[in-house]
Amino acid sequence: MEEKILIIGAGLCGSLLAIRMAQKGYKVEMRESRWDLRDQALEGGRSINLALSDRGLMALASVGIGDAIKKECIPMVGRMIHSVQGDLRFSKYSGREGEQINSISRTGLNVALLEKADSYDNLTIIFDSKCTHVDLEAGQAKFKNKDGAEETVSADIILGTDGAGSIVRRSMMAKTTSLLFNYSQEFLRSGYKELHIPPTAKGSWRIEKNALHIWPRGKFMMIALPNLDGSFTVTMFHPYEGDAGFNTLNTPEKVRSFFEQYYPDSMEHMPDLVEDYFDNPVGVLGTNKCYPWQSYGKVCIMGDAAHAIVPFYGQGMNASFEDVRIFDEIHTQHQGDWEKVFTAFQDSRVVNTNAIADLAIDNFYEMQDKVDDIPFIKKRTLEMQLEQNYKDYYSKYSLVTFQPNLPYQDAMLRGRAQDKMLLDLVTENDPNDLVLEEVYHKLKSISVE
Amino acid sequence: MEEKILIIGAGLCGSLLAIRMAQKGYKVEMRESRWDLRDQALEGGRSINLALSDRGLMALASVGIGDAIKKECIPMVGRMIHSVQGDLRFSKYSGREGEQINSISRTGLNVALLEKADSYDNLTIIFDSKCTHVDLEAGQAKFKNKDGAEETVSADIILGTDGAGSIVRRSMMAKTTSLLFNYSQEFLRSGYKELHIPPTAKGSWRIEKNALHIWPRGKFMMIALPNLDGSFTVTMFHPYEGDAGFNTLNTPEKVRSFFEQYYPDSMEHMPDLVEDYFDNPVGVLGTNKCYPWQSYGKVCIMGDAAHAIVPFYGQGMNASFEDVRIFDEIHTQHQGDWEKVFTAFQDSRVVNTNAIADLAIDNFYEMQDKVDDIPFIKKRTLEMQLEQNYKDYYSKYSLVTFQPNLPYQDAMLRGRAQDKMLLDLVTENDPNDLVLEEVYHKLKSISVE
Repeated sequence: MEEKILIIGAGLCGSLLAIRMAQKGYKVEMRESRWDLRDQALEGGRSINLALSDRGLMALASVGIGDAIKKECIPMVGRMIHSVQGDLRFSKYSGREGEQINSISRTGLNVALLEKADSYDNLTIIFDSKCTHVDLEAGQAKFKNKDGAEETVSADIILGTDGAGSIVRRSMMAKTTSLLFNYSQEFLRSGYKELHIPPTAKGSWRIEKNALHIWPRGKFMMIALPNLDGSFTVTMFHPYEGDAGFNTLNTPEKVRSFFEQYYPDSMEHMPDLVEDYFDNPVGVLGTNKCYPWQSYGKVCIMGDAAHAIVPFYGQGMNASFEDVRIFDEIHTQHQGDWEKVFTAFQDSRVVNTNAIADLAIDNFYEMQDKVDDIPFIKKRTLEMQLEQNYKDYYSKYSLVTFQPNLPYQDAMLRGRAQDKMLLDLVTENDPNDLVLEEVYHKLKSISVE
Repeated sequence: MEEKILIIGAGLCGSLLAIRMAQKGYKVEMRESRWDLRDQALEGGRSINLALSDRGLMALASVGIGDAIKKECIPMVGRMIHSVQGDLRFSKYSGREGEQINSISRTGLNVALLEKADSYDNLTIIFDSKCTHVDLEAGQAKFKNKDGAEETVSADIILGTDGAGSIVRRSMMAKTTSLLFNYSQEFLRSGYKELHIPPTAKGSWRIEKNALHIWPRGKFMMIALPNLDGSFTVTMFHPYEGDAGFNTLNTPEKVRSFFEQYYPDSMEHMPDLVEDYFDNPVGVLGTNKCYPWQSYGKVCIMGDAAHAIVPFYGQGMNASFEDVRIFDEIHTQHQGDWEKVFTAFQDSRVVNTNAIADLAIDNFYEMQDKVDDIPFIKKRTLEMQLEQNYKDYYSKYSLVTFQPNLPYQDAMLRGRAQDKMLLDLVTENDPNDLVLEEVYHKLKSISVE
């Protein structure tokens, strides 16, 4: 095949996409604005991790890298909820065995994908080459290279996987009226800051390894995910303003006293708390949506470039990997007609990425505020019983996380309807009076348009 | 008062705002990217008109120009609905006397506002000066003047009224993460094209003067508003693609035969139909929303710059004028503290401009598709009876259009609840069986949070 595909952005989504397109025989050139992660990954530095679940794994498997990646994962089988008093309560993600999510190093995963990508002769990766503009109609992209030189690259097809701040998307936005380009960006009034729990002296985990830890506190929270080296990456999600606001917690004393009051059991595990707090920046939490994703049958965006979401469902990376799997399937159907591929892809996909964006916002409120509520706990208990007893019952969380063949939109509609029914049942009845079989049939009778 | 206010954009909203700020004693400088409308308004050319209603009139009255403007208006007391067969059906806007909307020349109104603005010694207007960037924190704006020279203007306060493509808003968007700037742009898959019905040889109106004419055709429509000179400005609202699409109607033959089939009664009134059709561009129909509207207590946007909406409720200009009235009131309360003024203004206003944006989208579907439906007609008949008999009953349309003291959001919530109740009543009952008094009490009992 003589067609050249230019992929802009060699992050998680771009690298996976490049592998698949190379496997299909295209001449692939992938450019990345930053350095080659492999040069610095070995130097250490603290890990940022992500939750990889079935949708992501399915997409990784489709390029033949699923099993290799699994070995780098730490399974998380539920949420470990830390109360202010330091009590622990474990809430499983699923009533079924083997349904788990996986903590994985973001850099490690990206490096593995780059290594795989580099193994194809028809795939070239160029780093330190920053896209500045895309001529959508001509299929040409301008880059600024490390030495400052400008370069124009032509291709038959350009695929933009350049993340939430996508330059490819920005080039589409500059053509707003001719493309009728719908776009939205919406930010939470909370941000995030990363902290760190180091391993024990023996290199082991200081708190339960196989769990996603949550310190839910109503209007703010902290979470922690395990790393292979025995450490945990901790993330505070707090508002910018107010008593718990990042802007308010602006002295070592205030930070220490805040942690003593709200996260006391975490302090013994974070010797560098104050240093980390002031070293690390506050990141913003935003949702981007847009439509169309393609222009002129020449250029198409996917991953965060098309749909950046907040991290509270652990589905950002999974949704981007799923983009690649769906794109691949649709490409197989309509091969030879890129405009048809792009149009079918964006039109089938945007409703689902919009759905996971909205679910992720819902989960922001659920995680920080609801996981410790009595009705919520009753609902989760009932859901666990249902999942243990009925192979074909899936909670909303399980539909999203463990049913990778179910489109996100269907998972959202069914999951929300189930949640509403279950919450009504546990608030209107003593859960002991509920007959599981009847609840199951009631739930199964839900019909979602 | 020594404070200098720079207003960017001398359109309808900016001109009204400049007048009010000059009346309050500020040193006002208003800059406009285009030429002085007064230089060319006299040359003629075809009129573009707008529907001015009570909210706009109330704001104009607040600067003392209401009565003068009313004289330039043609009252429209209802919708004249043209069927494919050429039958006419008149549907009043209100059951009460004196409740009407007003057709006015856009250019004429802008010229009147500019004339008034020019009468203040403390107000300077500079035309042909295009804003290219605003330094939000410094309170400085860059302009490119007619001669190509760049100029930087400093001010204590900068108010951006530079329309849907606002450069001031774009400068805020460039600071997305520090301002947490929410923004959305969404386009209808229909556009618009203006046509023209000339006056009769005697300078009179060829079709009913005191009405807004509609040719509703389901997935597309045409409307016409009267001008003082006896002409009508006609606007087609059609999809881009498909049988009725602007892109499909691309030859004189196709246009003529389409009009013969769908708008036959209009053809005798449009001798220049085909010429107009091919001379005039297709405009896009979009909704812009954003938040915040202010930055650093220095810069604030309003009007279309903050909330561009589609034209189907006839409220775009009225909402922008209302911005000025509300801004003025809040300014009076918090005078001396601009950050408080801006924050109180944006926070009280954005929910209402979001509401009218959504109502305008609803009306797009209502006007082209519903006005000729039996249940809709039954509902309107009942509403007219209610308005004729009960002084304090207002239909959704009347709440939005004739209750200028009611915030748009309240009008939307109450109006939608009333519509739902009335549609249920007329579909479930024979309207003759309904007792007006009972319907009235049922409607009045609606409680909107």
